[in-house]
Amino acid sequence: MLYIVGLGPGSRDLMTQEALDVIKKVHTIVGYATYVRLIRDMLEGKELVVTGMRGEVERSKKAIEIAASGEDVAIISSGDAGIYGMAGLVLELASKMDQHIDVRVVPGVTASIGAAAALGAPLMNDFCHISLSDLMTPWDVIKQRVDAAAKADFVICLYNPRSKGRPNNLREALDIMLKYKSPDTVVGLGKDVARKNEIETITTIKDLNEEDVNMTTIVIVGNQNTYVADGRMITPRGYTL
Amino acid sequence: MLYIVGLGPGSRDLMTQEALDVIKKVHTIVGYATYVRLIRDMLEGKELVVTGMRGEVERSKKAIEIAASGEDVAIISSGDAGIYGMAGLVLELASKMDQHIDVRVVPGVTASIGAAAALGAPLMNDFCHISLSDLMTPWDVIKQRVDAAAKADFVICLYNPRSKGRPNNLREALDIMLKYKSPDTVVGLGKDVARKNEIETITTIKDLNEEDVNMTTIVIVGNQNTYVADGRMITPRGYTL
Repeated sequence: MLYIVGLGPGSRDLMTQEALDVIKKVHTIVGYATYVRLIRDMLEGKELVVTGMRGEVERSKKAIEIAASGEDVAIISSGDAGIYGMAGLVLELASKMDQHIDVRVVPGVTASIGAAAALGAPLMNDFCHISLSDLMTPWDVIKQRVDAAAKADFVICLYNPRSKGRPNNLREALDIMLKYKSPDTVVGLGKDVARKNEIETITTIKDLNEEDVNMTTIVIVGNQNTYVADGRMITPRGYTL
Repeated sequence: MLYIVGLGPGSRDLMTQEALDVIKKVHTIVGYATYVRLIRDMLEGKELVVTGMRGEVERSKKAIEIAASGEDVAIISSGDAGIYGMAGLVLELASKMDQHIDVRVVPGVTASIGAAAALGAPLMNDFCHISLSDLMTPWDVIKQRVDAAAKADFVICLYNPRSKGRPNNLREALDIMLKYKSPDTVVGLGKDVARKNEIETITTIKDLNEEDVNMTTIVIVGNQNTYVADGRMITPRGYTL
């Protein structure tokens, strides 16, 4: 059996019971070095297959081969493995490699949910997830999605909002949103949520300091009803109170 | 402390470690009867405040009052409490009641993530969450969001897709999507995920049988690249394989 396991945002507390059980049970763990470190205290006696950044295809093939040989193996992702994680790639490759193995995707808490909980309750109405990384999706397609989401007043969660290789994507995305959203729209930043050095920041589109945002930050841009009370970011569901 | 706890889709396995710990720790649990039943084996010796459907405001006020009195209390939601759950309402009410209590939102696995994992990996590219319940949001606003999401080729997760009170919202939403999406677009249905009688169905917009959909179903409509392989619904992330 090949388990594709989401570890949650970072802390053991936010892993699901099933993810913990699978990690304990399997003999071989496949993963990116940073994620393997998140569970380093659970690895005694286990076989590890660790690769670096951009080693996703190599890791996935290795995990599929191990599972095809009849051994239980877990390939790990941070957050939820099915959201910008390893699940899609592994299933795509298994099919292309003609390996009809048993696969179980073990759900996890994705980064936006962890960040939202730390910020308050910003995702109480309809929302989108958009990755601002244009490695895999053309930047024009991403911009169209930002435009559509802002126009229809979705709450918008931005994954991979800013890195050294693309310092301006976040600013460009916010400028598109300003065609429809007020500059005073509430924005929440969750940086390193559930890890050491976690920081939450609540600001607005116009006051957002891009230097506060890096690749481990989730940016949540509110809808027109999102507000701040007692230091918490709240998107009303619509109850009459 | 007031804990707002997401129980995940249903099974104990998909609860986070923190949710389990909080439920064990607190003396008083506040919740809707159906969700309290999900954890009935953990309730020995505890005080319960259970209300029926539409009792959300009453439940929230009660939980806030208990926390304000200095007692630890947990109010529970299914899925993640911050996604169409109890977190927003509790935080809104606490602010309106001028109760500056300590609150911790404990993240959970939301229904779409549970359904996606059971179906394969349909959420590997940008996606939206839209609730088709027009109790809280005007139907015109919901339709505009469906239109915008379909036009920009988001994967679309529909919450509350169909009930006796609104038998036609799903059909109307799918008809809007057909302005932009092919009738052959892959659709995944996750019904009662992680509960008894769980059923996954993979179909297309044109072949979807509305009778397969009720309030405990999550409907995931793919983007133009979503496909089926080995009985799994996969949205490619964009790797060149």
